[in-house]
Amino acid sequence: MTDHLVLFMPSGKRGRFPSGTPILDAARQLGVYIESVCGGRGICGRCQIDTQFGQFAKHGITSTQENISEFGAKEIRYAEKRDLKAGRRLSCSALIMGDLVVDIPQDNIINAQVVRKDADTRYIERNPAIQMCYVEVEEPDMHKPLGDIDRLLSALENDWDISSIVIDTHILAQAQSILRKGKWAVTAAIHHDKATQSAHLIALYPGLKNEAYGIACDIGSTTIALHLSSLLSGSTLASSGTSNPQIRFGEDLMSRVSYVMMNPEGREAMTEAVREALNTLIQNVCDQSGIDRNDILDSVFVGNPVMHHLFLGIDPTELGGAPFALAVSGAVNVKASEIGINLNQGARTYMLPCIAGHVGADAAAATLTEGPHRQDDMMLMIDVGTNAEIVLGNQTRTVAASSPTGPAFEGAETSCGQRAAPGAIERIRIDPETLEPRYRIIGTELWSDEDGFEEAASETGITGICGSGIIEIIAEMYLSGIISEDGVINGDLAARSDRIFSDGRTFSYLIKDGEPKIVVTQNDVRAIQLAKAALYAGIKLLMDKQNITSVDKIGLAGAFGSFIDPKYAMVLGLVPDCDIEHVKAVGNAAGTGARMALLNRNHRREIEQAVQNIEKIETALEPDFQGHFVNAMAFPNKVDPFPKLGTIVKLPERSDPAISENTSEGATPRRRGGRRRAR
Amino acid sequence: MTDHLVLFMPSGKRGRFPSGTPILDAARQLGVYIESVCGGRGICGRCQIDTQFGQFAKHGITSTQENISEFGAKEIRYAEKRDLKAGRRLSCSALIMGDLVVDIPQDNIINAQVVRKDADTRYIERNPAIQMCYVEVEEPDMHKPLGDIDRLLSALENDWDISSIVIDTHILAQAQSILRKGKWAVTAAIHHDKATQSAHLIALYPGLKNEAYGIACDIGSTTIALHLSSLLSGSTLASSGTSNPQIRFGEDLMSRVSYVMMNPEGREAMTEAVREALNTLIQNVCDQSGIDRNDILDSVFVGNPVMHHLFLGIDPTELGGAPFALAVSGAVNVKASEIGINLNQGARTYMLPCIAGHVGADAAAATLTEGPHRQDDMMLMIDVGTNAEIVLGNQTRTVAASSPTGPAFEGAETSCGQRAAPGAIERIRIDPETLEPRYRIIGTELWSDEDGFEEAASETGITGICGSGIIEIIAEMYLSGIISEDGVINGDLAARSDRIFSDGRTFSYLIKDGEPKIVVTQNDVRAIQLAKAALYAGIKLLMDKQNITSVDKIGLAGAFGSFIDPKYAMVLGLVPDCDIEHVKAVGNAAGTGARMALLNRNHRREIEQAVQNIEKIETALEPDFQGHFVNAMAFPNKVDPFPKLGTIVKLPERSDPAISENTSEGATPRRRGGRRRAR
Repeated sequence: MTDHLVLFMPSGKRGRFPSGTPILDAARQLGVYIESVCGGRGICGRCQIDTQFGQFAKHGITSTQENISEFGAKEIRYAEKRDLKAGRRLSCSALIMGDLVVDIPQDNIINAQVVRKDADTRYIERNPAIQMCYVEVEEPDMHKPLGDIDRLLSALENDWDISSIVIDTHILAQAQSILRKGKWAVTAAIHHDKATQSAHLIALYPGLKNEAYGIACDIGSTTIALHLSSLLSGSTLASSGTSNPQIRFGEDLMSRVSYVMMNPEGREAMTEAVREALNTLIQNVCDQSGIDRNDILDSVFVGNPVMHHLFLGIDPTELGGAPFALAVSGAVNVKASEIGINLNQGARTYMLPCIAGHVGADAAAATLTEGPHRQDDMMLMIDVGTNAEIVLGNQTRTVAASSPTGPAFEGAETSCGQRAAPGAIERIRIDPETLEPRYRIIGTELWSDEDGFEEAASETGITGICGSGIIEIIAEMYLSGIISEDGVINGDLAARSDRIFSDGRTFSYLIKDGEPKIVVTQNDVRAIQLAKAALYAGIKLLMDKQNITSVDKIGLAGAFGSFIDPKYAMVLGLVPDCDIEHVKAVGNAAGTGARMALLNRNHRREIEQAVQNIEKIETALEPDFQGHFVNAMAFPNKVDPFPKLGTIVKLPERSDPAISENTSEGATPRRRGGRRRAR
Repeated sequence: MTDHLVLFMPSGKRGRFPSGTPILDAARQLGVYIESVCGGRGICGRCQIDTQFGQFAKHGITSTQENISEFGAKEIRYAEKRDLKAGRRLSCSALIMGDLVVDIPQDNIINAQVVRKDADTRYIERNPAIQMCYVEVEEPDMHKPLGDIDRLLSALENDWDISSIVIDTHILAQAQSILRKGKWAVTAAIHHDKATQSAHLIALYPGLKNEAYGIACDIGSTTIALHLSSLLSGSTLASSGTSNPQIRFGEDLMSRVSYVMMNPEGREAMTEAVREALNTLIQNVCDQSGIDRNDILDSVFVGNPVMHHLFLGIDPTELGGAPFALAVSGAVNVKASEIGINLNQGARTYMLPCIAGHVGADAAAATLTEGPHRQDDMMLMIDVGTNAEIVLGNQTRTVAASSPTGPAFEGAETSCGQRAAPGAIERIRIDPETLEPRYRIIGTELWSDEDGFEEAASETGITGICGSGIIEIIAEMYLSGIISEDGVINGDLAARSDRIFSDGRTFSYLIKDGEPKIVVTQNDVRAIQLAKAALYAGIKLLMDKQNITSVDKIGLAGAFGSFIDPKYAMVLGLVPDCDIEHVKAVGNAAGTGARMALLNRNHRREIEQAVQNIEKIETALEPDFQGHFVNAMAFPNKVDPFPKLGTIVKLPERSDPAISENTSEGATPRRRGGRRRAR
């Protein structure tokens, strides 16, 4: 009997197995993850696979129908009771009889939102921290008076090879009635805590429990976005978002830290506020999907360090001043109930590690998603908020820093800045000849010079400029010559256009007259210059550390990344030299990273290891930072590196729930989204 | 440089070490437990040792003053600040310079109550599950932005070699302020959970915390006894006891199980009642000793299966009928806070394993104390309550069973039976010639025929017969010929003495006339015969399993064992053939076992292993049980095996708090003690 070659797709893992090996066993031996709740009894149907038949010359495989066993008794029984799609087999039952190409069906793979079609398309195999294990337990026997739970543990060891299981206290009181209700067949939810190499029995269900859920959540300082996923299929069933209720204690992070310093009850109030909001979001996703919150067994949270600390009930005061000491930087494992999150009584919570005092678990999650540490290419990742979190690296070396950009990019600190709410200007073009602007506001797709705009705008009015809008305006003012390379509004142009007018010592640019009047002042330009100089100086510092002058890829994370046109980021010199084709918005990379950690515990180990290896640069301690900052105040040469400046990049719709609910730390659109969802 | 021979007393462990080895290091290498909180910094003083100088020919050692280093700087500094008794050295500082005999001082060994002076006197080395670890933590550094807790964990790994520490959730919020309060020097309380090979950070104190406490508790169905011990010195600082408040739901175990079956809230009410009583006892021992309950970090509880389940909040209904399925038989590890026990927020609770559905953690604890599994001798251990728990074995093989003795031994089911309260007859002698009794009651040391007895008895009256009294009375009636070998009261004797009188078909024996009249009826004799036959049949069954007809040692545990004269136990045939010198009351062996498990985590592993190896015999399933039971109804030949019957064995005083507070499952004296203490 010779061994047969079996190729598993899409992972491409392959190996040789003797005739008669169940496909599930072969997959396990190769580390190909196929779910199975019933342990090969053919009743859960979780281990379904497809087969591909034909010549696979590249792999030296001829995969034929004869090379897989015929439908066995288990499969026939399963197919009678439930729907088994054509071609699908139960891998616990189907045996390898010759060379085979096996497909793990797409619905058993993490959903497409996570698997991005990059050059290096990668499939994320699932391996959740929670394992659902169906067992049949020996009935009590007076001759062997082991306790019911002890016999359950024996069954788990025998059938699933899990030993030294720690029992959650609440299970002690429940186990006997559950075992009897299930007629000695139960499904145990086992939490594998790889950090301590221990396995915990966290929930117990009578009979076969063929589902379990988890939530992944990004706690932004402005918006909270939460997703409900099946731990068994990987699919996302519902998403919900809301504005962070801590906003009432302070708009930005530092004002919240100050609030704690000034108010003895402040920390507690903010912790309660965010936990209450999270519990409401959990209720929302349960209602949307018809899931019982008791079936949610795992949860992953990310957030910047202040959000991370407040969520965990930790006083963030130390983060308010040097040396910006985190209470804990490593990954945190707790019970959800211990931090007031209402899921199943035994549900666990995992928080990704923080990188540094200003570079949080959200940046770690984004790093996990984008994976600079997995790549050859030198990748720059930026997440802009009051502080910009910057990660630069490849698989050889990764460095990280935060830069004090201040709130200008978030629509604050400028004369007409506002939150990204309907009525806010978000896009603009300035005619370099006439200096006339045309713009778009949030709430309508029409440009201001198109028919119907006025009617459309009359609903909300034209109220101000949102954060991404101000970036485009400053860039267009620069491109049209209204401001010089060193950021001065050219007063000479007042002769050419009424839109340039003196406001005393300096000049301003009028975008819209009337009520309210919308202008960009010299001070507004200065505020953006300071913010972008801070960002660029931080990036430059990291590039110095890496000894490079350009990067291979740039990922713009969060709402900031989603709603600004990469072209304008380059015009303003927010980002360094890079082929503009490789400058991309990466969406809510933090939220995606949270979901990766939810669905595969190996990713938890990966990011814990990666964060340990990331070199943290504290900009305040770097002598070069100030010089870089001063140099970055000016705008770059406008012609040279941007051959495609004329094209208008299609940005995502703000109404796209995938964006508005996925936004991470940073800019304003989330606020609008939050309010809308809060209704 | 040659190695030196060092002998540690009292363990007798020895080894060779190079010149200059700190004595503490040598002890650790040999597995000799010496406490050290400060990790060898010479500030905690916990690692003190004595030295013995002289010729130790047997060991080939000449131990001299020159063979230990002179007082070092650490010792001089310590001795200046605190009291260092003459001859004492700090083993972290004192170096081995030649052959040495080192004494671990007695006050560092578990206190004398635990170390019984048996033929095989053994010293119990301490190795508590909680380790107090003083560390100096690196201050935060912006160049290395590890969290405060992460640096704490690094220090614990570096200084104490403890890795993969799991942090209790409540520590997350406390750590930063504690580290700053201690100026980066803190003492971490680490719980070593050997079962899962994991270490947990459960409490954190600023600076040096040189004490930690634990409680050990035996939850009897009648009385609860609790002890407070120092985890660092092993000494017991306070004890307290109370009657089990569950008594109001049912006097005996089965009536409490019935109460749960009949009342939906019954389980919860009984769980709350016992936990509340425990919290009161904890407050009592804290008040007695001036200890803050926040400094109690560990706890061990034992009890019979029903007490065990109710304490943990588990419905005991399954224990009320065959197959008597325990919810959990293995050792239980939980947080004290999870089961409503108010100690330090991070304190742990350990419960010893149960042996079988009627043989509980109390029997396991007694087994740990008496150690049949450690001995060559075949030892019988009996703990009598409504069920008698019986363990028989040696290091080769141990078997266990429970026997349904019923409540007769507890003073119930007999015509004049009562709880062991003042006024109850507890000892008796019957003149074989005159058939006149003389007796003693609880509350006075005088016998009824001594001067002053009447006055002394007038306080309480003579109210009935307590459980241990009825055993002595039946035995004396047998010895004086009032009852025959088959238990019949001889009516012919009515001619000789008015004390024998007809009550219809049968005869009774009058102990005391008046109000109340105290008699022993034929039914009373039958009740005791049934109880003792059940006990003996259980013992005989185990002896059959071991294929023996006599035992080497008998240990009578609990109050039953403490208050009956072993002689009468043999007269009645309660126990099998054994040299009466080796029949001993072993006191509250269960409570002692709880303390052993509290003070040395190795004892937890020992009893877990031992219980796994114990063969459980279910008497109800054994075909021979009924035959043994019938055969055991008769009384044994009264002359043969009891040469010393005439002597009066000195029994302990009932007022002895060590007994009355330590009583385990079983008889009545606890009730009196409980009431007294409850006042």
